[in-house]
Amino acid sequence: MRTGADLAAIRERKPLVHQITNYVVMNETANATLSLGALPVMAHAVEEVEEMASVAGALVLNIGTLSAHWIEAMLLAGKAANRAGAPVVLDPVGAGATRLRTETAKRILDGVEIAVVRGNAAEVATLAGREAEIRGVESIGASDSGADLAKAAARALGCVAAVTGPVDHVSDGEHSIAVANGHELLATVSGTGCMATAITGCFLAVAVDRPLEAAVEALVAFGIAGEDAARDAKGPGTFHAALYDALYNLDPDTIDSRAKIDE
Amino acid sequence: MRTGADLAAIRERKPLVHQITNYVVMNETANATLSLGALPVMAHAVEEVEEMASVAGALVLNIGTLSAHWIEAMLLAGKAANRAGAPVVLDPVGAGATRLRTETAKRILDGVEIAVVRGNAAEVATLAGREAEIRGVESIGASDSGADLAKAAARALGCVAAVTGPVDHVSDGEHSIAVANGHELLATVSGTGCMATAITGCFLAVAVDRPLEAAVEALVAFGIAGEDAARDAKGPGTFHAALYDALYNLDPDTIDSRAKIDE
Amino acid sequence: MRTGADLAAIRERKPLVHQITNYVVMNETANATLSLGALPVMAHAVEEVEEMASVAGALVLNIGTLSAHWIEAMLLAGKAANRAGAPVVLDPVGAGATRLRTETAKRILDGVEIAVVRGNAAEVATLAGREAEIRGVESIGASDSGADLAKAAARALGCVAAVTGPVDHVSDGEHSIAVANGHELLATVSGTGCMATAITGCFLAVAVDRPLEAAVEALVAFGIAGEDAARDAKGPGTFHAALYDALYNLDPDTIDSRAKIDE
Repeated sequence: MRTGADLAAIRERKPLVHQITNYVVMNETANATLSLGALPVMAHAVEEVEEMASVAGALVLNIGTLSAHWIEAMLLAGKAANRAGAPVVLDPVGAGATRLRTETAKRILDGVEIAVVRGNAAEVATLAGREAEIRGVESIGASDSGADLAKAAARALGCVAAVTGPVDHVSDGEHSIAVANGHELLATVSGTGCMATAITGCFLAVAVDRPLEAAVEALVAFGIAGEDAARDAKGPGTFHAALYDALYNLDPDTIDSRAKIDE
Repeated sequence: MRTGADLAAIRERKPLVHQITNYVVMNETANATLSLGALPVMAHAVEEVEEMASVAGALVLNIGTLSAHWIEAMLLAGKAANRAGAPVVLDPVGAGATRLRTETAKRILDGVEIAVVRGNAAEVATLAGREAEIRGVESIGASDSGADLAKAAARALGCVAAVTGPVDHVSDGEHSIAVANGHELLATVSGTGCMATAITGCFLAVAVDRPLEAAVEALVAFGIAGEDAARDAKGPGTFHAALYDALYNLDPDTIDSRAKIDE
Repeated sequence: MRTGADLAAIRERKPLVHQITNYVVMNETANATLSLGALPVMAHAVEEVEEMASVAGALVLNIGTLSAHWIEAMLLAGKAANRAGAPVVLDPVGAGATRLRTETAKRILDGVEIAVVRGNAAEVATLAGREAEIRGVESIGASDSGADLAKAAARALGCVAAVTGPVDHVSDGEHSIAVANGHELLATVSGTGCMATAITGCFLAVAVDRPLEAAVEALVAFGIAGEDAARDAKGPGTFHAALYDALYNLDPDTIDSRAKIDE
């Protein structure tokens, strides 16, 4: 892992990260992207997504609030990113909760070459054909352990799978890596999972041919920012504000020494 | 009233509160719901709202930014919630300001069994057929007093009416209860009315057959959180962040002693 | 310039500022408007925009996240505002980045009488037919200097042009005024440009026949708020919260003495 070096590269190159994401978290993922040092752009119209995706350094697809035109736009943008060689990360928010979400996530996985899927255990298990329980968009549980699930999902889906929770598990189907950075206050703010996905997009943009590393590094960086933000937080609101400060203040020189990675 | 006991029940059961709400406040109502201790989920596609509403503990319908598909989705979701026995709260944002909003609120009231309507004086007066003045989505005034308006609206609409303002008034058509908790900084942050509605949904989810109490308790809890948030706030921004902290830190053991209720 | 007097007028009259803006920043521009002292209202349905725009004190059109119905709504609302005599400000977010955005901005400029265009150098240069480079929605550079660009754009577009950046330049085609208020942290929060546009709408609402002054005053007020917010900020998150506090706490009596204007 070279989280510090890749973070420094993000800040130097300021990659454009095109995000087609849900209404609830758009401002939050844009600000997380900007605080980290990359350049977010939101565009969802079918008339412009291919043009935007083709100049982006990475594309983030998030199905948290769907409707028909947005699904079409995600497929168009994903294919344009593929043609342009820009990596695509998918956040299958609520897969397993409704048929629309499960089927849309599968359509995207079928039609677009995805570099990384980032979701909670229930979402990833649903897509990998494993058993899981979801309520709304929160994972209640999955039958596999996180490490097993990540590996099985990576093999089933043919991409890197990042399963986040109290401990995150990332796998490319061969190796499986655990990331223990983070803080429980992350679960009290809506959209922190979506932010983790956006940040995965930022790291992918500077590590196009290293998706496993990019996914791990993103979760390390975001988890450490969560740890820093929790220090003076009095609850979810002040934690949320401090989270952007922490992303902005992440130090490339020390971040690798703080990583809690178990390979 | 048993605000503390119902708040404890929310935190223990973590009810799923399905929200079809406006773009402006989605993140805010999701975070208010999560900070209080319930589980928010946003879904608005006609293809999935019935499925989502039927597994939710309560449904929140908010007409703050309308378009045709969203209106259809609200009606479908509302009927699905009714069939599943989940209480529905309606926030008629801007009723009285444009025909579309007034007519949409009425269509929802006609087609869906609503447990609680939560709005400002002008919005509720418009729906109850009383005189009122609204500018944009802010109430300028209504001819009735708050207590009279709440009672008249509850009778006219056949549900609990919660009229919020400097002092809130809640009625089921028989009893009328005033809630004096709150703080003037609440009026300086966009979407605090919508948050009050979302929190009403949380309380309804654990008090399905006590809508009058649920509405009062929600306004007590939210008002007390506003009081706590104001303590160290330097303006609307720090107040807004502190509001989520305060919701998260509400103490079920002391909250009833802080309620300013006049029955 | 009479920034203080116009700010006092905003707080006294509380003009309704109708905003059809992008999903990413809706909450942020609503809160900036409210913190300053005006009354925001968001409405985008073609069925209601004319009704809403015709009672507003100003209209803000922002093309940051487009789709077909929204474009139609912007044109309808703009024409209704023109008929009602309410000034219209346009924020051409991402003009130059995709054809859809460039063409939409031009359609609005053709079909609606715009009082002020507020954008970054690349966006304004694109519309004025000058050379520029944009990546996503961030300006990389323009061939003209800011002052020259603002003047050329004002002449080409037939309205006041406000080109924002480290130093802002505002022109009506005759005079060109530089505003040096602001802080670099403004560039670390998504949507601060959109907030500047919303605040321009607030000042236009109380200075209908003085668009050049209104645009300058808005940038002075917003820039000073940025300076105040930066004082104790630890990064983008705490700065963002403090920015609303600072707008709320702007002092009409001292603001003119803090203006950094070069005419």
